[in-house]
This record gives sequence, C-alpha cells and structure tokens, in this order.
Amino acid sequence: MASKMTPHPLEPLSIEECHRARDIVLGAHKQSILDFRSISLEEPPKAQLQPFLDLEHAGKLTPATPRPHRLARVNYDVIGRDKIAKYYETLIDVINGALVSNEVVEKPAHAALTLSEFETLTKAVAASSVFKEEVTKLNIPEGFEVVVEPWPYGGPDGEEEYCRYFQALCFANDTRVGNPDSNFYAYPLPIIPIMDARTKEIVRIDHLATGGEEDGLNYGTRSENFMNQYRSAEYVPELLPQGLRKDMKPINVVQPDGPSFKITNESLVEWQKWRFRVGFNFREGATLHNITYDGRSVMYRLSVSEMTVPYADPRAPFQRKQAFDFGDGGAGICANNLELGCDCLGHIKYFDAVNVANDGTATVSPNVVCLHEQDNGIGWKHSNWRTGRAVVTRYRELVVQFIITLANYEYIFAYKFDQSGGIMVEARATGIVSVVSIDAGKQSPYGNVVSPGVLAQNHQHIFAVRIDPAIDGANNTVLTEESHPVPTSAERNPRGNLFEVVQNPVKKSQWLDAAPQHNRVIKIINPSKINPVSGHPVGYKFTPIPSQVLLAQPDSIQARRAQFAKHHVWISKYKDGELFAGGRYTLQSQDEIGGVSDAVKRRDDVLNTDVVVWSCFGLTHNPRVEDWPVMPVDIFQLHLKPVDFFTENPSIDVPSSRNLSSTLVKKDGCCSKESSRL
Amino acid sequence: MASKMTPHPLEPLSIEECHRARDIVLGAHKQSILDFRSISLEEPPKAQLQPFLDLEHAGKLTPATPRPHRLARVNYDVIGRDKIAKYYETLIDVINGALVSNEVVEKPAHAALTLSEFETLTKAVAASSVFKEEVTKLNIPEGFEVVVEPWPYGGPDGEEEYCRYFQALCFANDTRVGNPDSNFYAYPLPIIPIMDARTKEIVRIDHLATGGEEDGLNYGTRSENFMNQYRSAEYVPELLPQGLRKDMKPINVVQPDGPSFKITNESLVEWQKWRFRVGFNFREGATLHNITYDGRSVMYRLSVSEMTVPYADPRAPFQRKQAFDFGDGGAGICANNLELGCDCLGHIKYFDAVNVANDGTATVSPNVVCLHEQDNGIGWKHSNWRTGRAVVTRYRELVVQFIITLANYEYIFAYKFDQSGGIMVEARATGIVSVVSIDAGKQSPYGNVVSPGVLAQNHQHIFAVRIDPAIDGANNTVLTEESHPVPTSAERNPRGNLFEVVQNPVKKSQWLDAAPQHNRVIKIINPSKINPVSGHPVGYKFTPIPSQVLLAQPDSIQARRAQFAKHHVWISKYKDGELFAGGRYTLQSQDEIGGVSDAVKRRDDVLNTDVVVWSCFGLTHNPRVEDWPVMPVDIFQLHLKPVDFFTENPSIDVPSSRNLSSTLVKKDGCCSKESSRL
Repeated sequence: MASKMTPHPLEPLSIEECHRARDIVLGAHKQSILDFRSISLEEPPKAQLQPFLDLEHAGKLTPATPRPHRLARVNYDVIGRDKIAKYYETLIDVINGALVSNEVVEKPAHAALTLSEFETLTKAVAASSVFKEEVTKLNIPEGFEVVVEPWPYGGPDGEEEYCRYFQALCFANDTRVGNPDSNFYAYPLPIIPIMDARTKEIVRIDHLATGGEEDGLNYGTRSENFMNQYRSAEYVPELLPQGLRKDMKPINVVQPDGPSFKITNESLVEWQKWRFRVGFNFREGATLHNITYDGRSVMYRLSVSEMTVPYADPRAPFQRKQAFDFGDGGAGICANNLELGCDCLGHIKYFDAVNVANDGTATVSPNVVCLHEQDNGIGWKHSNWRTGRAVVTRYRELVVQFIITLANYEYIFAYKFDQSGGIMVEARATGIVSVVSIDAGKQSPYGNVVSPGVLAQNHQHIFAVRIDPAIDGANNTVLTEESHPVPTSAERNPRGNLFEVVQNPVKKSQWLDAAPQHNRVIKIINPSKINPVSGHPVGYKFTPIPSQVLLAQPDSIQARRAQFAKHHVWISKYKDGELFAGGRYTLQSQDEIGGVSDAVKRRDDVLNTDVVVWSCFGLTHNPRVEDWPVMPVDIFQLHLKPVDFFTENPSIDVPSSRNLSSTLVKKDGCCSKESSRL
Repeated sequence: MASKMTPHPLEPLSIEECHRARDIVLGAHKQSILDFRSISLEEPPKAQLQPFLDLEHAGKLTPATPRPHRLARVNYDVIGRDKIAKYYETLIDVINGALVSNEVVEKPAHAALTLSEFETLTKAVAASSVFKEEVTKLNIPEGFEVVVEPWPYGGPDGEEEYCRYFQALCFANDTRVGNPDSNFYAYPLPIIPIMDARTKEIVRIDHLATGGEEDGLNYGTRSENFMNQYRSAEYVPELLPQGLRKDMKPINVVQPDGPSFKITNESLVEWQKWRFRVGFNFREGATLHNITYDGRSVMYRLSVSEMTVPYADPRAPFQRKQAFDFGDGGAGICANNLELGCDCLGHIKYFDAVNVANDGTATVSPNVVCLHEQDNGIGWKHSNWRTGRAVVTRYRELVVQFIITLANYEYIFAYKFDQSGGIMVEARATGIVSVVSIDAGKQSPYGNVVSPGVLAQNHQHIFAVRIDPAIDGANNTVLTEESHPVPTSAERNPRGNLFEVVQNPVKKSQWLDAAPQHNRVIKIINPSKINPVSGHPVGYKFTPIPSQVLLAQPDSIQARRAQFAKHHVWISKYKDGELFAGGRYTLQSQDEIGGVSDAVKRRDDVLNTDVVVWSCFGLTHNPRVEDWPVMPVDIFQLHLKPVDFFTENPSIDVPSSRNLSSTLVKKDGCCSKESSRL
C-alpha cells in the first residue's frame, strides 16, 4: 500500500490521516456516542523502524521498500446508554484502514484529561448553587468576578481513587480595571469546588486554610473583608503603574544569508553535520528522532518524558496540588502558538501540530515548535603566546523550542545542538507561581508572602528526560565514571597528587543518583567501537544534575505516584512504547504504574544492548518576592557531550572570521566599525 | 591636594600616575639597579572609601570633599652589588608624592613572576649546553625546532623551597609547515629544564616518564624515534587539512539605536538601573566595585580571586604542574587584547589597562576588557489561558568580559548583569590541554591519549570568586537555607507532602560545602532591613556549585598551598587588602599563607557585620579526545539572585514588544517578515 506519497514513518499524522482513523473508529461504534480525547501517531516498533532507517541512511529506499505500519493511536470515550463512559485506546492502520487493536482501559487507570473536561468543570461550577452560596459568604466586593481555574485532582486519598474528579482553584478578577488581562492571581479565593466528571456536578467544596505560622494546619481567622488586603499585581504592559522602562534599545539578530539549517518537507532537519527528525505529539510536545552526526548514529530518540510539581503545604487539600504536566493532560496539547520576534530572534522556522477536538475533527495548531540558530559566545579560543596570533570561534547553537502553559505556569523546553557534538536539553520555568490566600499580616512556613494576603507555596518541579541512545548503533553500555583521591604511598602516589578515574559498568537495569563529590559522570558507550586515538570505546556522557530529589515522604501519595522523581538517573532496557517516566496513566494515580521505576524492576541485563537512560532533575522552589507577579526564568540544563566519539574537536573547522557587523562604542558615545585595534 | 581632575578613587592608575610612583621609588634607591614588577592602584581602605561613595551617591561631592588617599603599590626588585635581588613592595601617594610604606618581602614568600622572567628562562635554556646535549639525545628529526614554554615551578619539595626556580615544558615545532602558528603542542618533548632565577642558569634537567599503564611510575621504553609517532594537530584555519566548513552563515547582532548602557570617562557603567565601576589590575583582571541597583547598594566589590590547576599525574616531576593563575603571575597581565567581532558581537565598549615594563615604563594594553549587551532567550512569559494573550520579554544581559591566556590554556571570565536583579560570574575554560609524551600505542591511567603519542593529563581547575556584599549597606549576615523532608505525623505532616525550610545563620567565620541533596542555598541578608511584602530581611542568594573539591591528599604540597580549593564556600570578616583566596604569595608556595583559610581561622564574629563570601568551584578535567587540539568551552556559572530584595520581579517593566527584524523561514526556503500567525 505504500506509495511515494506515504509520509516518513516518524512524521506526525496529518489531518487527513487523523480523520481516516476517526472514521474507522466511528464505524466500529455506530450505536454509541464517542468523545475523542486524542489521535496521534503510534511510533513504529524499533524492530520495524530501525531497518527502515538503516536503508534510508544507506540511500537504498525504493518505492518497494517495506515500510513500518503507520498506526494512529485513537483515545476516546464511548458513552453508553447509562451515560457511563468507557475509555478506549484503539490502534488504526491509517494506510490500509484496519483496526489493529482495541483496548478498554479500566481502573485504576484514568484517561488523560482533555481541555473539554476543563470547560465542563468551568460550566459546572458556574451552574452550581452550592458554589454560589459559598461565594456569597466570601463577601467579595462589587466589581470582582470569580475566575475558576481547572486543575487535575492530584493524588486522591482513600475511596475516592476510582472516581474521576476535577478541582478548581478560584480567584477574583477586578473587572473595574477594564482589561480582561488584569492579573486575577492577585486575588485568591479560599475555596476549591470539586466536580465528579461522571455526573458533571459539583460534589463538594473544599475550604482552604488561610492561617499563618501561628495557626499550624488550622484555618486561621480570615477577616470578613479579606479581599481588601489584596493589591493589584499587573504584568500586561498597559496596566503597569510604572509603565515600561524606556532605556532598553533593540538587539536585532540578522542573518543576511539566511539560516544555516535545511528543512525538508517531512520535518527532517540538517545543520552543521547534524541530522534529525522533529516529532510532535499531544503528550510530550516536540520529540527528536534518529539523531546522527556526519552520518553516524548518536540517538534513536530524545524527549522530555514527564514532569511533576508537588506542593509542600501540608494543610488539606493542598497535598492534592501535584501536577504531572505531561501525563495528566499532555504538554503538547498545552503548547503555545509561538510568535515571530517574541519567542526567539533571527530566522525562525515553525512547525505546526494537529490537534483533535471532541468530535474527532482535526485542526492545525500553528507554530507549536520553533527552530532557530543562536550565538552563545565564544566556542573555543587559543592565542599563541609566541606569535600573539589568536584564533577564536563562536559557539553557534541550533535550538528546537516549545513552550507550554499550564494554568498559571509556563515551561520553555529546548533541545540545543552545538558544533562540538553536544546536545543540551534545557528547561526554563516561568509564569505565575501558584498562590493561595493568607490572612493579612501573617507569615507561613509553607511558602512566602509575595503580595499582601497572597501566599506562594513551596513546591518542587522535577523533570524527566528520556534518552534513547544509539551510539554508533543500538547496542550500548552505560557506565559510571568517578574521580577518587588515592592515599599517599611510595608505590602509587608518592607525592599525594594522584587521583584515580574509576569506571563501573551498569550490568542490570537500575537507578543511580548524582554524586558530584565524586565527579560522577554517566557514560554511554558502544563497547564494540574503539576510538582509534585514545583506544577507548566511543561514547557520550553527561553529568547528572545533582538537584534535590522528591522530598515527599516515601509512603505519601505524592511520592508513590512519582517514583521517577526519587532518583537522578534510571537505566532500563529498551521496550517499545515505554516512553513515560511516571507511567502511561498519571491522572489521579495513586502509584506509578508502568513508569520507569517499574521498568528497572525487571532487572534486565543492560550490558551491550539496547539501553535507555533517564535523567531526572529539577528545582525545590521556595518562592521569592521577585517571582511575583511573573517569575524570571529559572534555567536547567542537561548537557550531553561526546567523549572519545570523535578523533578530534569536531568544531575545529568552524570559521574564525571576524563579524563585520559589530561596532565599537567610542568614548564620545558614537559607534564605529573600524578595527578596535587601531 | 584634590582637584577637579583627580580621578575617582577606584579608577586604575594612569600612565602618568604610574610614572610618578616609579620616579619616587627610583629616587629612593639611587644607588641600586631596580627591576620593576608591577605598579598598580592600592584600593583605599573601606573606612576611607565608603564615606566618599556615600557622599557620591547622595550627590554631595564637592571639590572640598576629603578624598581617600590615592596610592600606588609598586612591586620591584632592588638588585644589590652582590647581584642578589631584594623584593620590595612600596606604597606611594601619587597625589602628594610621598612614600607611604616600604616593605621588604622575604622567605618563604616569593614575588609573583613577570613575563620578563619568562623571557630570561627562554634565553637561559637556549644558552644552556646541558640542554643542548639533552636535546641532541632526543634525536629530533630535521625541520623541527625546540619550543620552550615557561611555567612556574609549582610547589617545591624539601630544600628547594627558598630557591626561585622556573621550569620549561618543551615541545617541537615543525618548521617545514612554514607557518609560525603550527601547533607545537602536538610534539611534546620528554624533558623539563629548570632555571635558578638568581643565577639565570639551568641547574637541572628533569626527565619525564613516557610509559603507559603497564609502566606504573617508571620511565617506560621510549623509542629512539619517538618523534615519528606524532602527527600534526593544527587549528589555525589555513593549516586545517579539511579546510573550514562552508555551510555556516553569519549571525549579525545589530543595535540600530546603539547600546542601552552608558559609560562615563571614569569607567562608571550604567545600565538598566545597574550602576558599577569597572576596575582592572595586573593580578585579578577586571574587578567590579560599588554595584548598586536603582540607587540601592548590592555589592562593595566582586572579583575572581584565584584559581589553581593541579595535575594528577603522580610521576615526578609532574606534581609540580600546579598553576595559581592569578597569584603566580597575574591574570590581568595575561589578559588578551580583544578584537571587535571576535570575542563578542554587537556594540562593544573596550577598556584598556596600563602595564609596566621592567624599567618602570608604563604603556597602555588596549582592549583588555569588553562590555556589551546580549540576548539570552526568554526572560519571562505568561499566557492568560482565558484570553489567550501572551506577554513575553527577552532576557537581556550586560556582559563585562576578559580573557586570559596562560601558555596552552585560556579562560574567559564574564560578569553578567540581568534585568531581574541577577549577577552571574561565568568562567569558560578553553585553549589547549596540557600534554606530555607517551610511548606509541600505550594508554595511561593518568590521562587520555588525545593524539598519537600525546597524553593529556588529568587535572582540576578550581576557581575562587570573592563576593564582598553590601546588601543595602555593609552590615550583612550570611545564612544557609535548606529544604528537608518532615516525617509523617498527624500534627505536622498528615499526608507526607510537607518539607520544611531550615535557616541557620553563620555566626563565626568558617567554611561550608555545597549540599545539593538538601537544596542548600547561601543567603546574604541585611537583618536590619525587612522586605515590606514578605516580612523577611532583604537579601541575595546563590546555590554553591557542587563541583568536586581538590582531590590531592591533605598532606600533599598541592593541597597545602591550595586550602581554598578544599571547600565550596568560605565566610570571612572583611579586612582591607584580604583579596586573595590562595594568599598574596602563591608562586612556589608550600602552604597557603594569608589566604582565605587563614582568614576564617580568626573565628571572627560575622553576624550583622561587614562580611565577605568566597565561592569556590571548578572542574575535574579528565580530557576527551574532543578536547584536542583546542577544547570547546567548558562553562561554569555562579548565579547571584535577589531574594526578597525587591517588592516584585524587577524585570516586570521590560518591554514585551515584538522584534521586527526576525524573519520567517517558509517551506520553500525563502524568508519573510510577515507575521508568522497569518
């Protein structure tokens, strides 16, 4: 069935392919009402895809080459006559139109939420008389309207576990400002309505403690007129009381000859000997596939796999503030539509995504990923002290970026390639910190008061990056390398200056932690391929980021459902579909099911085989006043670097020519393009 | 004596001032031969300078305002009739022409080296018949010339301690290449001649072990024709066998309205509410002084204080490869003269330095510091999920940069200011790794073979940044803040999600280590100034970089002379002139004398007083083949951030306007300035 027009096996589904899959599913459930959650490419099994990629790289693809099956994963609810929804995950072959498999997913798993469920919640709250009563009790001044912000329910306690609930954080919006973008987070309301997704009714309203240090876990003594304690905290330019600063002059990035990258119509990116494919799905956002350098395989797949944000306020129901921003609803779904000249500078290439509505209608979500080059200072430099001759090159990066908004918060994810063979995965946390009400004048051990009456609660952000390496081929070995002091001895270390470099291969799937005190480095090598210069196996390495791991108690629901966040590095044996550090079903989970902690429990042999490495890192975020009202980016970088992969610095041939557009600021303030050495 | 023309007390000495100081010193030693080492500004005592700065900020400076003494520190040798040099450090008041103090510095201290001593070494080696004999034995093929690279002697063993020695690493330069910039490091020679600086004679030639793993500490079995094992490793563009890559298109940084910073003629920099002075001296390079934000004091002084690079090869005499790149000879002396369009992009302001020759003649060394702005991606972003409105700002930085070359290696140091109140100190390590000869085909546990016959030895780089804070005034307190799990209990942590934030003030001067497992943060607060929003003291914080500390054994000379490198953070009470983490005299030191480890030994009270914080971090560098022939930058960043110093995010008023010069890469490869959202 394959034709010349068949997309590459890694190309996300087109609108047409989504519709074909939808129609087949609809045809299979003619008697029922269907509520579509997602339709996305099911990546081919590696055993099918790898031979195809090998042929592709060998230039041997022909129209007759067998192609991997092109499958759509269709996630949807089938609403029965009893109005009870059954959740299906169905695989459809979009080439031959066949239904390949059909699974009803049941307890304890919950389907990931959809934005339409959030809309349902908003409507349910608006329609709830109980909620109206509670709001009335709050004595909210005229001119404020209540804003209901949908959140996943977090990890439920006890019997609730199989109900499908949503919670709504509530704020008030000052309509007197006359601007729909007035910052409502400055006015938190101390109630959380809970909706049962099955009945679409508000089943309960949780009341929030608003006390301070002196009130412990209790409710404090909220004033009748607590709304008066608040003050506005605007961030949109036209509402800033001080106006915008006027002394910042533009920096323009100009590429007169265009970008150095090349894109084909199938998301294939080529840049400075790098070659990879950009994928995108509703859950992970941008994923990278089949990364090669100068024709040599480096990685099969690279992705941000999961992220959890547990809050540390012990007062119920705040323990349920724990998002899994990839598994709960999908980072791809929440990806921003990026704007030229705002989210990056220079020559920008955008990639679109295809999203699916409730009724299965697929539409394009434009500009969800951007690609551009940037300058990151000096790349390498050496001056010959004998001749005075300096050679200096720039550090050029290619950036694949996507940005997600999750209610109050945003994350900026970037994969950055450099000319020295390095790949960096970067996360920037920004947006508005999650806040709750605190009685006027009080302080809390559970957070920081960032605006009068507004408590920003302590929390953590823990990311999991999934690295599926293929260092000159699929069979790789992971080892730790550490540097250790050596006791003084005449035989080995007579003057005390020796340290030894100790390597230990990882034999069975397991977790590891960062050990910066030992300079612990994770090396992924191909034991069958020896660097001709050093005599050591070719490899890539990274230093695990030694950030604090999950702090929640091991027996807490927060910790049980986020096992991946308890260690810095996980090493598992490759298994098709095993992509999600926190498990496939994180929404309202009580335990991590099928996550990376389960993967390593198999105790697979991982020496010289198809291995997957997971790097977990993040931030314990005890907010500062400076994080309000929108926090400056906090930046996390995981840097993968070649180690004896090449036979010299691969950026040695980067031109060192002087940039002729740079100008000299002279003493009198004018500028000149003359040489600064005159 | 002060006139309107008197420079600011923090302005480096002018040529005229240097010459005035020189002449006074010459006048005081009319009967002797003088050999000048350095003439530099002796910064005023804080008790004199601070009141002056206070008046300056209050706009109350008048011609009658008393000024701090303007002193030159003149370091020089007085050569007696016995040809024995006595080393003097003399303070001269350059305004009134007075000799203020006069000190003869004696054992165990050595004066810092000068480049002229390196020249003497080069000449002494060239004149040495013993050296010639040794070279003859090396059987070097025709067409190669010997290159002698001067190094400090490191930490001497035993009786040598009071002799002043220099060592020369030797390489061969392939003159047949016909290019003076052919990379001689590809041809290491296994001898190190040693010069006695007093007699200027070669006193010894050390023979270097060239064995591999199997040879332990012994000499191995170097081949007669060992030079044949080497191969060229060029990095200057015209010598690259593969030529330069041709697919990298220019990225120009254009600032059509000029830079956003303002410079007055006295090195006063003003940018985005920041205001500071750029100092420069022969030892530390660029230093920053009197850093304020919006008129509020943040720091009195910020500097890179010291750096040590110990090598871990246990075979004598490699234990003496240990540079103190600031104390031994001066980072400022080794600062590169920067070039427009090479070392940074955009609008560049350069600062010059004044260097002094042997005879005391001062000359300008142009462009030793550069100042420019750069874009570092997104600064903050938030999208309102109700309206879809996104506000996104750029992360603009102001960079003060200097670059030093120390024989084979270079370091790029930058102070980066941002609009969110942050200050970053960045170090990039690049240049050529230090290599020695290894027998063909062998491997070594002491390093990595990066080119045939060339062993790059394992080593560490440990930097010390000196932070002299003045958070809203001189009296500050340092505290550690950590986040700790809390056991589950009904009273305090019923659901296990609580973590507690624990602060401990530092009461006495002491060291501390990084503790990323506890999210240890160092906060510098002003206990007398409370943030009106949070109710907590105003402050700045940094996370100590948890890099590996010095690995040399505690009783080794490498460790004894680099105590600062054994811990991540040191907290001392301010003392005038106490600027150098490794002590004032590091050259050939056997112990750290007057370094930060001595400063903390005073056990001063450091609560709510004038405190200094030292941050030490670095890299255990076990070289990769990719580090050859010039290594891609390794980047280290120490980020100081405000914590409850401001009453909101200080960058909230940064304009979010779209950059109109960005262009869209369309599918057909063309570019367009149209909105990407069309």
